Amino acid sequence: MRNLLMKVNYDGTNYDGFQTQPKGNTIQDRLEQAIFHLTGEELKIIASGRTDAGVHAYGQPFNFVTSSQIPLERWCLALNARLPQDIVVTEAREVPLSFHSRRGAKRKTYRYTISANRFPDPFQRRWQLHHPVKLDISAMQQGLIHILGTHDFTSFASRKSTKTSHVRTIFEAHMEIDRTMCRSDSTDQGVIHTYITGSGFLQHMVRIIMGTLINVGEGKFQADEVAGILAACDRAAAGPTAMASGLALWSVEYDDQTNG
Amino acid sequence: MRNLLMKVNYDGTNYDGFQTQPKGNTIQDRLEQAIFHLTGEELKIIASGRTDAGVHAYGQPFNFVTSSQIPLERWCLALNARLPQDIVVTEAREVPLSFHSRRGAKRKTYRYTISANRFPDPFQRRWQLHHPVKLDISAMQQGLIHILGTHDFTSFASRKSTKTSHVRTIFEAHMEIDRTMCRSDSTDQGVIHTYITGSGFLQHMVRIIMGTLINVGEGKFQADEVAGILAACDRAAAGPTAMASGLALWSVEYDDQTNG
Repeated sequence: MRNLLMKVNYDGTNYDGFQTQPKGNTIQDRLEQAIFHLTGEELKIIASGRTDAGVHAYGQPFNFVTSSQIPLERWCLALNARLPQDIVVTEAREVPLSFHSRRGAKRKTYRYTISANRFPDPFQRRWQLHHPVKLDISAMQQGLIHILGTHDFTSFASRKSTKTSHVRTIFEAHMEIDRTMCRSDSTDQGVIHTYITGSGFLQHMVRIIMGTLINVGEGKFQADEVAGILAACDRAAAGPTAMASGLALWSVEYDDQTNG
Repeated sequence: MRNLLMKVNYDGTNYDGFQTQPKGNTIQDRLEQAIFHLTGEELKIIASGRTDAGVHAYGQPFNFVTSSQIPLERWCLALNARLPQDIVVTEAREVPLSFHSRRGAKRKTYRYTISANRFPDPFQRRWQLHHPVKLDISAMQQGLIHILGTHDFTSFASRKSTKTSHVRTIFEAHMEIDRTMCRSDSTDQGVIHTYITGSGFLQHMVRIIMGTLINVGEGKFQADEVAGILAACDRAAAGPTAMASGLALWSVEYDDQTNG
């Protein structure tokens, strides 16, 4: 038996999220079907985490134990031949049987993308939130700093969260502004990528942080009010849940031995 | 009456090209329908050129004469509200009544995109040709140089071309290699964007040039053979027609007065 760690990129637009659910069309279902077609094994894969419906991923790790003798270097092509075009397995390697891609994850990074250009980009629209109204990006960056560190993130968690603790640690958070598609004669503000790295994330956490920061950018909140929203431990204090399509799981890091 | 010059970006994946055709679902049809819904005018727009089925465009100019009094600054939003999400009008301005977006075009640039990474990119697959087999990019760049200048491009034109002259001038041509999505531990060669600027292009011309250069990259032709293929004035001498999805109209330039 071998424990295989793989990475998958997917355009989540047409899926009900990663994790299998009743009547759902999920990334996990498609991966397990592809493995079944390839090996005849009906198995359950373990993912580094869930993503919501419509959320994307770059290099999301997952692992499973298989008795298949297929050589490592053939897995990616063989699975991709059995997967829809919007799901692509990009890496496969053997890890110790004790490795568990969810429990072993030490740091996760999500990226949220807002287009603050005047018109939507027909090529990127499926993975951007289009926000054509002027944003105070500097204020958003100031607001983002308040989420760094260890906090109770109840204000930034779905009310449906079933976790017993809402304490999480955010290690890093920053924004990058891509102005390559801006037209010089316009009010285009660029494409804003926000990267947030933490120990773990509650349901909707990045999307509620982003909805709140957009409110800061619009002037509905002051940047420093983010600290008070966090302290309130009340979902009603924060801004709206930003739409799923702007969100992508960007990377998952493990300890050195199995570092993805 | 005003002559309006506009620019449109479109993801051509789901369309039968730009120009209206019987039973076709074309970009031109959608633009004319949107104008009709907005103004009640049944008019024909003039485009800077055609694109084939599945080809994309960034800022393709088109113009039309209208009696509508809608202020200039409102046209883009008003048309976009009446267009599908994969077609976006990004600019509108008034030009002299004599302006004709096809006849006035002095230089056109097309971009062709090849992903030479090992695995397809689920986010970019609709506007890339995925070519995972090793390419000699340096040889392709040498081959590309041979198309510069004024030549009879019969070897690089569809056999269905109805043009009386196949002489065209290529002003500039170069490749840019984007390695941002390459994984360090792999055989990824990057995403190759080829930009070709000319006085005009024959049907399938860029795609046949690219199919020929891919053959050069694969070692099926030597780079210097491109000169002989051009001199042959025979479509059979060149390589295959590369798939439409990798192609985008990138820019169209006019004389200074009406410069897009």
